[in-house]
Amino acid sequence: MVKKIVILGSTGSIGRQTLEVVEQFPDKLKVMGLSAKNNIELLEKQIRKHKPLAAAVWQEDKASALKKRIAGLHTEILAGEEGLNTLAAQPEAEMVVVALVGFSGFKPTFTALQADKEIALANKEALVVGGELIMAEARLRNKVIRPVDSEHSAIFQCLQAGDAKEVERIVLTASGGPFFGWGKKELAAVQPEQALKHPNWEMGAKITIDSATLMNKGFEVLEARWLFDLQLSQIDVVIHPQSIVHSLVEYIDGSTIAQMGPPSMLHPIQYALSYPERWANALTRLQWKKESRLNFAPPDLETFPCLRYAYQAGEEGGTMPAVLNAANEIAVEKFMEGQLPFLCIPALLKAVMVRHRSKAKPTLEDIVGADAWGRENAKKILQKKRSLI
Amino acid sequence: MVKKIVILGSTGSIGRQTLEVVEQFPDKLKVMGLSAKNNIELLEKQIRKHKPLAAAVWQEDKASALKKRIAGLHTEILAGEEGLNTLAAQPEAEMVVVALVGFSGFKPTFTALQADKEIALANKEALVVGGELIMAEARLRNKVIRPVDSEHSAIFQCLQAGDAKEVERIVLTASGGPFFGWGKKELAAVQPEQALKHPNWEMGAKITIDSATLMNKGFEVLEARWLFDLQLSQIDVVIHPQSIVHSLVEYIDGSTIAQMGPPSMLHPIQYALSYPERWANALTRLQWKKESRLNFAPPDLETFPCLRYAYQAGEEGGTMPAVLNAANEIAVEKFMEGQLPFLCIPALLKAVMVRHRSKAKPTLEDIVGADAWGRENAKKILQKKRSLI
Repeated sequence: MVKKIVILGSTGSIGRQTLEVVEQFPDKLKVMGLSAKNNIELLEKQIRKHKPLAAAVWQEDKASALKKRIAGLHTEILAGEEGLNTLAAQPEAEMVVVALVGFSGFKPTFTALQADKEIALANKEALVVGGELIMAEARLRNKVIRPVDSEHSAIFQCLQAGDAKEVERIVLTASGGPFFGWGKKELAAVQPEQALKHPNWEMGAKITIDSATLMNKGFEVLEARWLFDLQLSQIDVVIHPQSIVHSLVEYIDGSTIAQMGPPSMLHPIQYALSYPERWANALTRLQWKKESRLNFAPPDLETFPCLRYAYQAGEEGGTMPAVLNAANEIAVEKFMEGQLPFLCIPALLKAVMVRHRSKAKPTLEDIVGADAWGRENAKKILQKKRSLI
Repeated sequence: MVKKIVILGSTGSIGRQTLEVVEQFPDKLKVMGLSAKNNIELLEKQIRKHKPLAAAVWQEDKASALKKRIAGLHTEILAGEEGLNTLAAQPEAEMVVVALVGFSGFKPTFTALQADKEIALANKEALVVGGELIMAEARLRNKVIRPVDSEHSAIFQCLQAGDAKEVERIVLTASGGPFFGWGKKELAAVQPEQALKHPNWEMGAKITIDSATLMNKGFEVLEARWLFDLQLSQIDVVIHPQSIVHSLVEYIDGSTIAQMGPPSMLHPIQYALSYPERWANALTRLQWKKESRLNFAPPDLETFPCLRYAYQAGEEGGTMPAVLNAANEIAVEKFMEGQLPFLCIPALLKAVMVRHRSKAKPTLEDIVGADAWGRENAKKILQKKRSLI
């Protein structure tokens, strides 16, 4: 049986790799919709190859341009936020792969769920900012959200070896990023090019910077909390520089189940699409025939405080994680533009969090409001005080 | 609900630890029967504590002695092979834990299965010599054999993350024993005391010597083959000196699931008893808060050929594995008595295997016959030619 899917964010790193998986299984997967922010050159190629019913472009002028370029094809072109949400609820699709970057993934995820779609979620921010809302909707509709993140895919797989109530804790592994083991002195001079070189994973720019600050791991903690219905105290993080063990579940009887694999996103993407089945593929396998070593170490929360801030935002709850995420999006943007030193990223996040009064049990509008508030205040602080530390 | 269990071999290492687990869960487990080869002092203590309906003693004179010592108690004392088989089929018991050593575990396992008991199997030799027979009986009765061996318990747990037909291969981990990395020169002078010092595991003497020669790992390959219905080509072995990863399952989509835990038999024993549930306990947990390292390396099949012989016996099939096991029991016995150098253990096994003409699809009687043949021929070779290499 062919599964009909929509890919939101098909020109990004995860979106492109999702299409690679689709191409390997033409009898199992069919693309019904694609979307891009502004890369219409690539989107056009994807449309010509996969012939989806519809494609959405975030930037409205780019949508018009694309419409002309593919005149004569049967793919309908949608534009802007409305277009993206229309695509997320496309009646012909059974599953929506959310591969959007940052806060922009939140509303389309919610829309797709409300339209009763299966969700393969590569956008952790959706759960970071709106986990409570999204999981309530998923429970209501009896949907299992399939994680695409390698760590959450690992946990998702390991959880099959026991019952949910038999979980003692989970341990998320973190490569530690390019600056593992560095001190504050060395970090002070870090340039964007350095932060963009991840030792193990090829990913988009935003998540690569978040990996370097450990903010990404912090968001993963918050994502895991909602996805697997855990207390924050049940979620640990361990640095594992080789990125072979993708995460672990420890059960109440002291048995630990780990999921391992080469550091490639193709594996977890495929599992999100194939679940509950597994499909044979020709992807890389782990090699056990030669000597190898796996290292583990505790994270350095003093030098990389973003991870700690995520736990704090999670404890506070309500709109605080949305504000943390918003401030971080601004901080990363400014860092990449060369306008904010690396060590000022956490400093900015802290300054914004301190100012925010969290609202409990936020509605969708509260979350959208908190996101705007966080961005605005991050910018304000940056204007007032260019040097934060 | 209380599960009523019989422990065959309750005075050995696994038997004693099984009773430790039972004592932790008095509302879940109740001992109905115990057995020992000759250690009636310990068996008496166990009887006074657990008050089983019956206890069997292999040595008939020891059985009579025990009968006198516990006169007045309600525990019936059984003797010899017949007594052991009676206990294995005890009508009041639901589960039989087979913690016997070597070939002696084969017939009682088969008897317990035929009496429709659940089986928790710590005796790998039962499957090494009679896997085909035992698994056919288990399938017939719709019984899942619960492995107690840490490696097989690991595989058993990892297999829950996928379907049996989605397994690509399994990887059994081996500590490498006390002589990992040694060459033949150093091994030539090895004394029994050295071989009895296992770096990670506290186990009985026989299995500790088998770990030093890698014969134990070879038997585990043959056990796994039957237990999980795999081809020998789907079973790999990797040396992992820390004994933290207890084994791994690789699925057809390239995802690997591993089970980890401290090197303690209490965890897998408990899981065999609690399956499909997991029970909360206060056993040691893995520590991730401090730096740690896991190493992996291929086994050295030239220096430790016993592992290779197991694969060869498995490929040959029929009665060959029973002969390999029988020869190994004699070889280990002679090594422990100081009458056979360490390096002559594999040499003796090879000499016996070469002489044997395997019989396909063996009956229970064929297997018992092959075992006797293997022992006899191992002894003959030893008498003729004291120096094998």
